[in-house]
Formats: sequence, C-alpha cells, structure tokens
Amino acid sequence: MRGDAATRIQRVATIQNAAPGSIAFLANPKYRRYLTDSQASAMILSPEDASGWQGAALVTKNPYVLYARVAAALSPPPPFQGGVHPRAWVDPSAKVASDAWIGPGSVVEAGAEVGARCFIGPNCVIGRDAKLGEDCRLTASVTLCHEVVLGKRVLLNPGVVIGGDGFGIAPEGGRWIKVPQLGSVRVGDDVEIGANTTVDRGALEDTLIEEGVKLDNLVQIGHGARIGAHSAIAGCVAIAGSANVGKHVMIAGMAGVNGHIEVVDNVVITAMGMVTNSVTEPGVYSSGIPLDTQRNWRKNSVRFRHLDEMARRLAELEKKLKD
Amino acid sequence: MRGDAATRIQRVATIQNAAPGSIAFLANPKYRRYLTDSQASAMILSPEDASGWQGAALVTKNPYVLYARVAAALSPPPPFQGGVHPRAWVDPSAKVASDAWIGPGSVVEAGAEVGARCFIGPNCVIGRDAKLGEDCRLTASVTLCHEVVLGKRVLLNPGVVIGGDGFGIAPEGGRWIKVPQLGSVRVGDDVEIGANTTVDRGALEDTLIEEGVKLDNLVQIGHGARIGAHSAIAGCVAIAGSANVGKHVMIAGMAGVNGHIEVVDNVVITAMGMVTNSVTEPGVYSSGIPLDTQRNWRKNSVRFRHLDEMARRLAELEKKLKD
Amino acid sequence: MRGDAATRIQRVATIQNAAPGSIAFLANPKYRRYLTDSQASAMILSPEDASGWQGAALVTKNPYVLYARVAAALSPPPPFQGGVHPRAWVDPSAKVASDAWIGPGSVVEAGAEVGARCFIGPNCVIGRDAKLGEDCRLTASVTLCHEVVLGKRVLLNPGVVIGGDGFGIAPEGGRWIKVPQLGSVRVGDDVEIGANTTVDRGALEDTLIEEGVKLDNLVQIGHGARIGAHSAIAGCVAIAGSANVGKHVMIAGMAGVNGHIEVVDNVVITAMGMVTNSVTEPGVYSSGIPLDTQRNWRKNSVRFRHLDEMARRLAELEKKLKD
Repeated sequence: MRGDAATRIQRVATIQNAAPGSIAFLANPKYRRYLTDSQASAMILSPEDASGWQGAALVTKNPYVLYARVAAALSPPPPFQGGVHPRAWVDPSAKVASDAWIGPGSVVEAGAEVGARCFIGPNCVIGRDAKLGEDCRLTASVTLCHEVVLGKRVLLNPGVVIGGDGFGIAPEGGRWIKVPQLGSVRVGDDVEIGANTTVDRGALEDTLIEEGVKLDNLVQIGHGARIGAHSAIAGCVAIAGSANVGKHVMIAGMAGVNGHIEVVDNVVITAMGMVTNSVTEPGVYSSGIPLDTQRNWRKNSVRFRHLDEMARRLAELEKKLKD
Repeated sequence: MRGDAATRIQRVATIQNAAPGSIAFLANPKYRRYLTDSQASAMILSPEDASGWQGAALVTKNPYVLYARVAAALSPPPPFQGGVHPRAWVDPSAKVASDAWIGPGSVVEAGAEVGARCFIGPNCVIGRDAKLGEDCRLTASVTLCHEVVLGKRVLLNPGVVIGGDGFGIAPEGGRWIKVPQLGSVRVGDDVEIGANTTVDRGALEDTLIEEGVKLDNLVQIGHGARIGAHSAIAGCVAIAGSANVGKHVMIAGMAGVNGHIEVVDNVVITAMGMVTNSVTEPGVYSSGIPLDTQRNWRKNSVRFRHLDEMARRLAELEKKLKD
Repeated sequence: MRGDAATRIQRVATIQNAAPGSIAFLANPKYRRYLTDSQASAMILSPEDASGWQGAALVTKNPYVLYARVAAALSPPPPFQGGVHPRAWVDPSAKVASDAWIGPGSVVEAGAEVGARCFIGPNCVIGRDAKLGEDCRLTASVTLCHEVVLGKRVLLNPGVVIGGDGFGIAPEGGRWIKVPQLGSVRVGDDVEIGANTTVDRGALEDTLIEEGVKLDNLVQIGHGARIGAHSAIAGCVAIAGSANVGKHVMIAGMAGVNGHIEVVDNVVITAMGMVTNSVTEPGVYSSGIPLDTQRNWRKNSVRFRHLDEMARRLAELEKKLKD
C-alpha cells in the first residue's frame, strides 16, 4: 500500500472515467495509456505499473482479484431481514430458515428446505423436496424443480431453470416414447449461474455441477452431464447429455460439447468450438471458420466441398513429378 | 419374460449402479461389460444379450422403449387433485376443467380454456383466449401468450414461452417499423418442449408444432415455421421464420435452419449443421469444422481464406503438366 | 390509392389465403404468382406490380412498411385501463403512473418508477429503482433487475431478463473470484426485445441498447456491450462483454461477436458468422461451412486438418515446375 491513509474511497470506477473519491484498477495493458491522467483517488496496480502512478495505490500481483474484493466490500448487496413476504406462498411442510427471505410471488413447495440466510427474490419457484444450502441467492424468477439440491453460496440469476426434464426419448415405430427423467441435479458450493441458463435433471443418475463452477447466460447442460469443479463456461454454450467435463476447464461462448464424451481437466475450448470427440490432453482447442467478406467467403466455401478431391489431385501431381 | 414371477421390483437403475430390488436395462453395447456383475434384480435385454445374464429378464427387441415404459409405470408423476390454488388468479371468464389444477402464482387470463386433468404448476401464465387440450402438463413458470392452442398431453418444461411476437420488422428510412404479429401458435398432441425454449407466434398465419414433436431446451422456433409430426430437435437449435421442416426429421444440437426454406421428411442434420438452403432429399447432412489444437487450427484456418486461389493454382499446375 | 372508397376492410391476410373483406400485400416477388387469383378486397402493391391487379389497391414504393401500418391500425393491442391488479404487489415507495397497468402476479420493488400508459403483464418483476419510460409494454414474465432504465415505447417479450449479473470472474489460485457487477443497463426508446433474451448489467459502466434496436429471441448481450441505434439482431446471437456494435448493423441468427471488439456502423453479418476481430469497414461478412451430405462432409473436413500442409505442397510443386 502506498499513499495517505486518510484518503477516503467511496466507490470503484474504470480508470478512464474515475472521479475523485473513487478507486480504479489497471489489469489489462490496453488501458495503461489512461493511467497518468486518471482522476481516481487511489489505484490498484501491479508492481510493474506502480511507477507510472504518483497517487495512493494498492500494489499487488493480481490487481483484478484485489479490485474484485475491494468492489465487493464497497458495494455489498443490500442487507435483508429474514421472513416470508405476505405475497409469497410457502407450503406448510417446507422448512425455511428464520433468517432466510422469501420474496413476493415466490412459491416454496412441499418438503423443500431453504437454508440459513438464503435470499429468494420475487417470483421464484422452489420445487417439492428441493434443498438449498446456506447463503444462496436466487435473484428473481428462478425455477428449481423437485428434489434439486444446491450447496452453499450458490448464486442464480433470473430465468435460471434447474431440474427440467432431460431430452430422453426412445424411437418406436416412427414415434417418440418419453423416457422418464428420474435423476436430479446436484449443484456444489460457490456455483454461479447466469440468466436463462438451463440445467436438466438426470435420466437416472444426477446431473452434477461441482463446486466453484461458473456458468454464463443461456447455457444448456444436458441430463447426466458433469461439470468439474472450478470450470467456467461462457454464454450460449451447450453441453450435451452425459458429457463428462473435467475440472478447471474453460469453454468460450457458443461452443458445443457432444454427449457421452469426456473433456479432461485444464482444457480450454475457444469460441464456437465444435467438440465432437473426447479431448484427452490438456491444452487449447479450436474450430470454426473466421469471418471474411461475404464475397471471399462464398468463393472459398464453395471450394470446401471439393477439398478431398483437391487433395487427391495434389497427390496425383506429386506422383507425376516424382516419376 | 424370464425368471421368478415373485421377484419384486421397486425402481429402475443403471446397469452399473443397480442395487437389489431394481430393474436395469442394456440398450447401448458400450455397457455390455457391466452385465455379468450387475446387482439388479431384473434386466431388460435384447435377444442377443439374453444369454449373458442369468437372472430375471424381460427380453425385447427394443430394450430402451420397454425400459421407458417400465420406468413410467414405477415412477409416475405424483397424483394431484383438481382445483385452483388460493394464490392462483383465474379470470372469471376463463374455463378451467374441474379436475385440472392451477398452481400458486399462476394466472389464467380472460377467455382461456384449460382442459380436463391439466396440471398447471406454479407461476405460469395462460394468456387470453389460449386453449389447452386434456392432460397437458406445464411444470412451472411457463408462459403461453394470447390465443395459443395446445393439443392433448402436451408437456412444457419451465421457462417455455409460446406465442411471443415474431421478429417482424420492416426497414424505412434507417429505422425499423414493427410488423404486427397477428397469427398464433398451434401445438399438436403429445408434444414435449424443453426448458426456456421459445416458439414465436406467426406474422399472419399460425406457427405449427405438429403432433409428437419433441423440442429440447433453449430452442428457437421463428414465426410461421412448421415443425412436422414426430420430428425431434435438440438443444440450442434455431429454426428461422417460415421454415418448413418435415416429419420424422432429427436435428442435433446448435444447428441452424434458415428462414423460408424446406427440409423434407426423414432428414437428419448433425450438430452445428448450417442449413442455408432447402434440403430436398432424405439423408444425413453435416457441416462445420471439427476441433483441433488451436495451433493447428490457426494454420489451417488462415489457409481457408485462400482456398479458391489454391484451387486455381492446382488447376493451373494440372494444365501445365498436361501440355 | 385506387378503387371504390366504400370498400370495407376488416383484417389483413396473406395474398394466397386472403378472403373478401381482407387486405393483402405483395412485397416479395416470389408471391407474385398469387396476385391474379387473390380473393383480397384490396391489395398493397408497388407501382411495378400495380398493373397485375384489377381491384382496389394502395400503391406505394414500400408495400411491406405500409402493410405494417395498416395491420397495426386494424389490429391494435387490446385497450387497457390504468390500475394495479389486486394480485400484483407494488412496494409503497414505487411510483406507478395512474394510467399504467400492473398485472396479476407482478412485483414492483422499492423505488421503481413505471411511466405513463405502461402495460406490465402478469408475473413480471420490476426491480428496485428501475425506471420505465412512457408506453412501455412488458407482455408477461419479464424480469428487470435493480436500476435498469427503459426509454419510451420499449416492448419486452416474455422471459426477457435485463440486468442480470455479467460474467465477471477473476482467477486466483485455481478458483474464480466474483467481480461485482456494479453498472446497470440503459435501453433506448422504441427498442423491442424477443422472448428469453438476456441483457447483462455492466461491470462498472452501463450496458447500452440504443434507440430503435431490435433483438430477437434467445439473444445474449454481455456486460458493458453497446448495441448502436437501429441495429437488428436475430435469434440466438451472442454479443460478448464490452463489444461495441455500431448503428444500423444487422446480425443474422446464431452469429457470435467476440468481447472487447468493435463492429462499425452499417455492417451486415450473415447467419452463424464468427466475429473474432473488429470489423472496421461497412459491408457484408460471413463465415462457416455450408451443409453437405455427411459422407462428403466427412471426407472434406478430414482434409481441413491438413490444409496448411496442402498449401505448402502446392507451393513446392509450383517451385519445381518453375525450375
């Protein structure tokens, strides 16, 4: 730490738009050019950047993490008192901790358990026999189906659905017979899930979202899939049923992972990656065709349909020239 | 059937984790290795696998379908009684069958009709003049907009929206004018729709989801599209407006179907398939680039931008060698 | 205008299915063949098509826009009266205009403001201190989180979530630390958003959806992104955090835009386009591999893994032949 201990900080701000009274941070080198002129009253900086800033500073190897902690301390979610809003409905057989809050329009069904200090915002549904650990936060309009189990400190954004039926259908004579979805979903501690993401219940055994997993918005997790601890999955990714995704995996937006395959620990999949087979070694993996002008893309993509033929013709020429 | 008729089965289980008292099944050859040691009290098997199992067995050509039927019989959804929960709101002009259930927080608007034995879970919305056939099940938090029509035995998972406005906009002087969406949505018998899937109402004529169609989670069906009977569409697929998808079509996850095109009956589209033009013959169709290490992918994808040029250079060489 | 001023029109219809009493339109040349035999009582036509129709007609350069206006006039949304449904919950500190409607099951939290003539359908949530301009319409089951600001005439379809937490996580020792999301979302006038679309609140500064923007269903807008005025984004598109999308941009279905990049005004991205880098010139851009039979696709996509090697071998041959 550097600077006057009497400096008063009221809020966090971006380096380029900070006003006096705020603390900013520099984590991305792209923003280094704003450092000299920033109006922030204090800065969170790495040791390498510390010499570029004359004011009060918190110097740390990981400015982004320290910023996150400072921001959380300066802007905590509003406090709440335990209780059940008169417009909520809690089944008499449900157990709600006395210091948990059930918001207006929310429904807690028979046999459900809501742990200490949970905050259930408006218009949520906690299904029959679902169980929530301590300090969970369901912002609003979240739906947990029957028997879903959440660990502690789970944060669910609006529109999240956990425990809907998996896509289990069996073909018979040109029709689809529904396969009952009898498993549930178990969500570990410190999981955060983004708006309108869906996690299906297992067909027979539980779908697993392990501790520390972070899912962005509009992600689909199929029935019986496992997402290993501390993995992070960005927006609009789909993980098909019974996929086994390891720990510390990062999957960028709009990628797809096939069903019944494995992705080992410490794999990174880039945006729109098409994961059709198991990934058995840690590393960074990609697929897809980068953007081009439509005019160029049309010419090239037409040729893709003849790539195998081109390869054969190339080999033929090589053979001719060798002879 | 084979074995002691007095065998008591209480539940279904996977072949590898079955305990005594449960019945398991073997449909996927990958799991054959678990057969000998399974602790199941009975097994559902194909004739080819029957000799590998000494215990009680149900032998059938289609073990998965028989399993589905056994599971449904052993684990039916909990029974319910007809009635309107005191925290539901039903408009006086709506008609709700006496043996249908309207859950807490649900709203049934003016003129809507809810058929016999329907189960409407918590926090659903049944819009003005919507009509539900017999035995529909809306798990929770489902929204049906005005005038939407459901057939019989339709199952809608949480977060489903049917009948939102289609994406109808007309350009005028650099702005978009809204085109009123005056059609509705008709959903046939035995349709099942996954969590947070959206089906838009037609611009002028109705969007059609024909009987027996199964839609997974987070699927988008555009205005005026038709999904033919007994087709199955996996997670995160988008079907654009006025697309005409035939019967018995299977579309794997994250595929996209362009607007105003036709996909004939009995077509299969694999995952992430990009369907820009009509598919006029039954068969299996694919597109996309399979995953590779980022290092390899970069080298190859850069070359894609020059594929047309490569093809021309190849033809040039062939010409030279012919001369 | 052409024809008998006494002609009575009651509704709009498609050119091929119009009955007497309806007005149809011809905007797409594909439908010209239906013109002669249409039973419509009046037709909206371009000057070029006017001679092909003998009946009453509205002749205009932009038949689709005029049709939109006529349809809106003939089929306005049902009128409503101001008020709060007895089953809605409005916090005493919220301000709801006397001519706005709050539907059953909806919740308006502390400090929120709902402007004149707003229609809030059933089961919506208006978060703490959110502000809605005049004439907004939230069909049903919409969730606005705290402090979100809507302009005038904003139309939100069911399941829309605005202001959920952005995907802000910082890595520390193999775990993810949550980065508080302290910005909000500002939505301009005349914006329309489709069912189950999500717009995240900014990490520090607001996410911006400028005036006249149209978003289709299941679109994801990441934290701190900006969508410029009068841009239109089709279904299942994802725009990552801090992306800066210009004005009058059109993005077709399932395309993805990377974070922290810019797409300038007047760009068109075709369906499934993979926008990894900034697009700095107006124009039409594409990517992806068009559909083929699975058999052909397999042969070609295998070769893609060797495209760089093929290019080198081709260059090698060219060199040999030059020598």
